[in-house]
Amino acid sequence: MSNHSLSPVMTADDVNRFLINVYPQLNEEFAAYSVADVKPGRCVVRLAATDRHLRPGGTVSGPCLFTLADIGGYACVLSHVGPEALCVTTNLNINFMRKAGPGQIDGHCRILKLGKSLMVFDIEMRTAKDDLIVAQASGTYSIPPKRSAG
Amino acid sequence: MSNHSLSPVMTADDVNRFLINVYPQLNEEFAAYSVADVKPGRCVVRLAATDRHLRPGGTVSGPCLFTLADIGGYACVLSHVGPEALCVTTNLNINFMRKAGPGQIDGHCRILKLGKSLMVFDIEMRTAKDDLIVAQASGTYSIPPKRSAG
Amino acid sequence: MSNHSLSPVMTADDVNRFLINVYPQLNEEFAAYSVADVKPGRCVVRLAATDRHLRPGGTVSGPCLFTLADIGGYACVLSHVGPEALCVTTNLNINFMRKAGPGQIDGHCRILKLGKSLMVFDIEMRTAKDDLIVAQASGTYSIPPKRSAG
Amino acid sequence: MSNHSLSPVMTADDVNRFLINVYPQLNEEFAAYSVADVKPGRCVVRLAATDRHLRPGGTVSGPCLFTLADIGGYACVLSHVGPEALCVTTNLNINFMRKAGPGQIDGHCRILKLGKSLMVFDIEMRTAKDDLIVAQASGTYSIPPKRSAG
Repeated sequence: MSNHSLSPVMTADDVNRFLINVYPQLNEEFAAYSVADVKPGRCVVRLAATDRHLRPGGTVSGPCLFTLADIGGYACVLSHVGPEALCVTTNLNINFMRKAGPGQIDGHCRILKLGKSLMVFDIEMRTAKDDLIVAQASGTYSIPPKRSAG
Repeated sequence: MSNHSLSPVMTADDVNRFLINVYPQLNEEFAAYSVADVKPGRCVVRLAATDRHLRPGGTVSGPCLFTLADIGGYACVLSHVGPEALCVTTNLNINFMRKAGPGQIDGHCRILKLGKSLMVFDIEMRTAKDDLIVAQASGTYSIPPKRSAG
Repeated sequence: MSNHSLSPVMTADDVNRFLINVYPQLNEEFAAYSVADVKPGRCVVRLAATDRHLRPGGTVSGPCLFTLADIGGYACVLSHVGPEALCVTTNLNINFMRKAGPGQIDGHCRILKLGKSLMVFDIEMRTAKDDLIVAQASGTYSIPPKRSAG
Repeated sequence: MSNHSLSPVMTADDVNRFLINVYPQLNEEFAAYSVADVKPGRCVVRLAATDRHLRPGGTVSGPCLFTLADIGGYACVLSHVGPEALCVTTNLNINFMRKAGPGQIDGHCRILKLGKSLMVFDIEMRTAKDDLIVAQASGTYSIPPKRSAG
């Protein structure tokens, strides 16, 4: 009955392995994305942006940054609630601040609320090279009730 | 000096041709997305969702719906301001309502404001088959000043 | 177990009476706001904007438009789920498009999703006088589980 | 021609005095809100929540938290661009996380981008007593071009 605790129940490696096993068809497409770190109430996700993530002008596309934010929220829920959660994004709001070229972008996520049925998080996406803010997002994941053991 | 008019300056075909010419490297990835209609203050964008747009469970992924919304906003600016505009998304907020399987999803876009430097729009994404709302989004595009001729 | 139906269970008058009874201390502050209509999946809320709702320059303030949007979402839940619901706003995103002077502003709300634990809506705020869009918002209300009888 | 610098041009006291002088009719209504601190790229705004800011149940209302966020964004622009700017909010997205009773709520604001025509910020609203996150918001202010001297 109590809220989920802000102690992680999976490591970054656990989450990466889970994503690869559960989403095999996404492996090629999502190979550039990974979970880099999990801490109480926080996680870091990473995009190793190559040519395929750029739009004309040589900057990382909006959909790729949205994907990073969405994976960030999913990693927050997964790492703190566990792999049985069939969570879905209900809302995501993203602000684009600065263009980024190819290279590593780190998404620093915070869990703002972890309730019984909702998880709210925000994420700040920064270039690894010079630590500039590229985009910022916040969003809500819906956490369905656990199926009671039978 | 006055605001952009809500009379389109490009047709749906014009916009599709422009996108293919300007973004050749995106052709494969964006082949499933197109502009289906342009009217004063409105446009319709389309995603022909196939297996590659699905996430486990067989539903169209959040990033694909975000991409449709972002293309919808871009089609609004392009069709009403013209191809010289180097517009960029500054904000996009998306709500996910219902899962959608493979098939056609139509994004009905409205221009809520077309000012000198900002365009605000919203989009409702519905399944073509049974007209159910899958997602709704609103966003802002920044329109840079036109370079003066000469 | 099934989703809430999109048939209203309260009329606009019911909702107005409920708000006055339950929130007596807000009567003075919220006298300018009311529910004007309830239909299946929709409702209309109204702000009769006077001097107290204006900011310098003589335009209706952002917080007053936010309040109208928030009341719109609450009227959607209340009218379609019933007065026992202890709903709370979890997210609200608002775009401001056009300045509005004193006068009536109508907020046209739609329920985009009414699930067991979440209601998603959007609202378009237009001047009654000349039907111009002033602001647009979308938001999510959390619906707590009903306390079981007995 | 260059972007606005992230060096403040007004102190917190300057901003408070400016708001009182320019918005005399709001003095009573906004007496509970103030700017507590201004630093390069950041500012802190404060709501001393009393009974009038509570909704039934004794918690600070959504519109009051929205107002705090909006004042936070305005304080960011004002303190870093100067008092001549006739800025307006174009978008604000707010997540509500936790109920807060009467008492002081501090809004910690960061400027995420300060461009020539747009300022993007986020704000974290925390109870002063026990430092719990009540709400989080992000938003965009439009900065009109300066009228040329002369």
